[in-house]
This record gives sequence, structure tokens and C-alpha cells, in this order.
Amino acid sequence: MIPMADSSRSVDVVRVRGSERATDVDRAATEEPLEIRLHGQPFAVIMRTPGADLELAAGFLLAEGVCESFDALGAIEHCTDPDADHPENIVNVRLAQLPAEGLDGLLAGRRQVTTNASCGLCGRRTIESLASKAPPIRSTWTIATSDLIQLPDRLRARQAVFAETGGLHAAALFAPPDRLIEAAEDVGRHNAVDKIIGRMLMREELPLSEYLLCVSGRASFEIVQKALIAGVPVVAAVSAPSTLAIELAREYGVTLVGFARADSFNIYSHAERIVA
Amino acid sequence: MIPMADSSRSVDVVRVRGSERATDVDRAATEEPLEIRLHGQPFAVIMRTPGADLELAAGFLLAEGVCESFDALGAIEHCTDPDADHPENIVNVRLAQLPAEGLDGLLAGRRQVTTNASCGLCGRRTIESLASKAPPIRSTWTIATSDLIQLPDRLRARQAVFAETGGLHAAALFAPPDRLIEAAEDVGRHNAVDKIIGRMLMREELPLSEYLLCVSGRASFEIVQKALIAGVPVVAAVSAPSTLAIELAREYGVTLVGFARADSFNIYSHAERIVA
Repeated sequence: MIPMADSSRSVDVVRVRGSERATDVDRAATEEPLEIRLHGQPFAVIMRTPGADLELAAGFLLAEGVCESFDALGAIEHCTDPDADHPENIVNVRLAQLPAEGLDGLLAGRRQVTTNASCGLCGRRTIESLASKAPPIRSTWTIATSDLIQLPDRLRARQAVFAETGGLHAAALFAPPDRLIEAAEDVGRHNAVDKIIGRMLMREELPLSEYLLCVSGRASFEIVQKALIAGVPVVAAVSAPSTLAIELAREYGVTLVGFARADSFNIYSHAERIVA
Repeated sequence: MIPMADSSRSVDVVRVRGSERATDVDRAATEEPLEIRLHGQPFAVIMRTPGADLELAAGFLLAEGVCESFDALGAIEHCTDPDADHPENIVNVRLAQLPAEGLDGLLAGRRQVTTNASCGLCGRRTIESLASKAPPIRSTWTIATSDLIQLPDRLRARQAVFAETGGLHAAALFAPPDRLIEAAEDVGRHNAVDKIIGRMLMREELPLSEYLLCVSGRASFEIVQKALIAGVPVVAAVSAPSTLAIELAREYGVTLVGFARADSFNIYSHAERIVA
């Protein structure tokens, strides 16, 4: 079986249940970038849970058409450069057989990108390039616990197609206490977020410094990053956040709420914006 | 509110409940590629649910750092070329202000890609390039209904970190009637699939023509495509498939099962491989 190294981590959390608030420690699924290098050249960065990195790289390169057999894959190993920053997040691949297009062809073929239904980070080449260029959010705006607790149900009520197909994510922008400004559904949660933020951009209403963004499902790094770029101070997810989402939210001043339910939620960062 | 155009479609399905089997019509969430062009150049392809395409493109370009305001975005519209294949899936953007790096810099900056926790299609430039290069699966291998129905529970039993964090997807490879060959968890469902297929590649056991791949959550285009490339004849998802996943499965000979539960499931393609 594939070993799971470091697949979850302890995080500090503020648990809110009705009018009660308590600090606690929770476990969050680990999300970290894995950089795949082909013959020393950056080829792709994959946001993943550490563990089985070589298998992940092999499977990814197979799906990308870079290799068709283990023989063609050649050497595949973690970075051993003692000067590398986080060598455990870099896998070096040296193909035994280069495809007909050659290494330059492989790299050039990836010049533009496809982002799938759940992808919003495409286009970056190295782990360093993931760092946010947005300024931290310093908004002193707050939202009341009693207002926040109503929002997930309102999001769900808007999920018309999900109810019909079980197959769509949703996002909604709220102006508390009770205005739903925009809602969108999509096979990709990050697309639903892009649709809402794009709509507000087209209305010239950015930054969204007095709004809350609510997303169905989980909160990944990219969801927090999109909110950050649009200046949203509070992000609430109906399900779990990843470790990298929490780290980004803490560092850049975003209030991140997870497991937002009808009677409770967890706060993972900047709890000061959620008031009694 | 953002309009939802064509966000779900009717699909034929075989519903299996215990020993009963009936044909029916179901609704599936629409997944289609949207190509974003900058000044006529392909910039990105996003797998999305149609509707609010201009907003999606605007929000995506904001998050990618291509524009920071609606003024900078300039003109944004659907393709009007009468000769274009599916112009409704192409959005043309002509920036009013090019960033300092210029158009070439923007395109070159996307030479390599980041794929996020849910992305496996990165690296392709145009809608046409999404077409599978894998041969159709012609395997006559079959699996019994009574065997298939046990597998989602066995996948769930393996989801150790999900149980702890609520934040991970899982995939498992089964050799019916009862052997679980590999299982993996990840913040990205497609990463879990890559880890399993990569492991089998490294063991030189491809093609996987007598195995079933089971995934937690939904089945998108890319999950079916990864299975297809590895030669997997049957894919079972615990939740809903997208329209594009179903189309790819039908065209390329993959048996696609959705809503796989303890006592029932739906078959969306090539039902002949699932026998009583």
C-alpha cells in the first residue's frame, strides 16, 4: 500500500458552537506544492498531499504523455541538493527516452495551460512563483456570529443545479447581515469563485473589503488566494480547509472559517473579525 | 444574479438497485472547455460549466495577475467567428493596458504550469488539444454487480486521513472479486489517481485491463482520461459524473459508474461490463 507521509497536521482552531467559543487543536489535510523537474528544468508544480511523490510524478507524466512505460521514465528521485529550499517538495526526472519532440518540445508544448474544473493556479513554473503578490488584508470589518451561521444554508438554497445533479460546486458573496450579492455554480469550485469575483470586477466594485465569500466543499490554497487578490476579508467553507489555505490566510490577514454549519463553525485564522 | 446557461443536461443511464436494472434518464452537470484568448493568442483552457463565461474569464485573468481592473481588461466577448468550432466555448480578451512584460511576456510566463490539488489537464493550449490520444478500451473483462457494490465501502474504510480531517479525496484500484491492490489519499482526487496509476507504472503492470478504479467524490473528464490512458476498463465514482466525463467514457470504451453506494449505482456508459 502507498504510505501516507505527513498527510495531516495539527492546527490551532477556535470552535464556535452557538454562543460558545473555545480554542482547540484540530487536524487539517496537508497541502503542499510538488515541483516536477525534467532534466533539471521546471516542468510543473502540483498542489498535493505529501506521500507517494514519486508515484504521483510518474502517474502525472504518464497522463501528460511524457512517458509511456517505466523504462522510458528513467530516473525519478527526490531532490538531493542540500542547498534547495524544501528538497522534499521537488522530484527530479531524467527520461531514458525523450519523446520525438525533444525536451524543448515538451517544455514548449506546455507554453499555455489548461486549467481543469478545479484548478486555478496554472501558469506558474516554480514553487517560489506561488507566493502571493497581493498585499495583506488589513480590513477592520467584522461580521457577527449570528449572521455568519445563516450563510451556508442560504448558499445551499441557491444551489439549484447541485440539487438536480449532485455534481456542482457553489460560491456566494454576502454583504452581512443578510444580503446575498452574487452566487454561482460550476463543476469547479474555483470557477464559481472566479465567476463571482469577475462579476464584481466588471462592476468596478473591487476591492471586496466588506464582503464574505462562502464556498461549498473544502477551502484550498487557491480559494484563499483568489479571495485575497480580490480583497475579501472573510472566507467561509462548508467543509475542511487545507494546511496551506490556513497558512496563507494567517500570513495575509484573511479570516478563514471551515465546517460552516447551521449551528457551528471553526475559525482557523484572524478570529478577531468574527464577533459575538 | 449570474445566469446559469445549460448547466445540466439529460443523459441516459442504467440504474442498478440490488438485482434490479432499469434504463432511465438522469441530469448531469455540464462540463465543457472554455478557451481564453488574449489578443487572438490561446492563453488558457478552463474546464467549466457554461454560463457567466465573461465573468469567469475576468475573474481568472484577475487571479492570474493579467489585469487589475475592469478598465485594464478592455474588451471581453465571446468569439464571433462563424467558422470557429464551438464559438460559445471561446472568449476573446483584448487588454486595454498590457502589463509591463507585454503580451509575449504574459504568454512566456505561462510556459510551465502549476496544477493545483484538483487539476490534471494543465499544459494544453487549445480545446482541440484536449482530445485523447489513447486508443479506445476494447477489454471484454466484466465485473459482477455483487462485487461492485462492495467497493465504495472498502474505499471508505481505507480513507484514514479523510476520517480525521474531512479534507482528503481517495482513489483505490481493485481486482475483483475482492482484492484491493492500491489505495491513495490526497487533497486532489486526480492526484490520488495519479499516485495509484504511477505505482502500477513503476511496477510495469500497465495496461490495467482487468482492474476497477474507484474514486471518492465526482468523476470529471480528467479522471476518465487518466483511467483511459492507463487502460482501466471500469471507473466507479461515489458521486456524480460530469457530461464530458460521460461523453469521453462512451466514445473511448470506458464503463463509467456513478453514485456508487452500498446498495445501488448508476451506469453511464458501456453497461455490458457489469453483469448480474
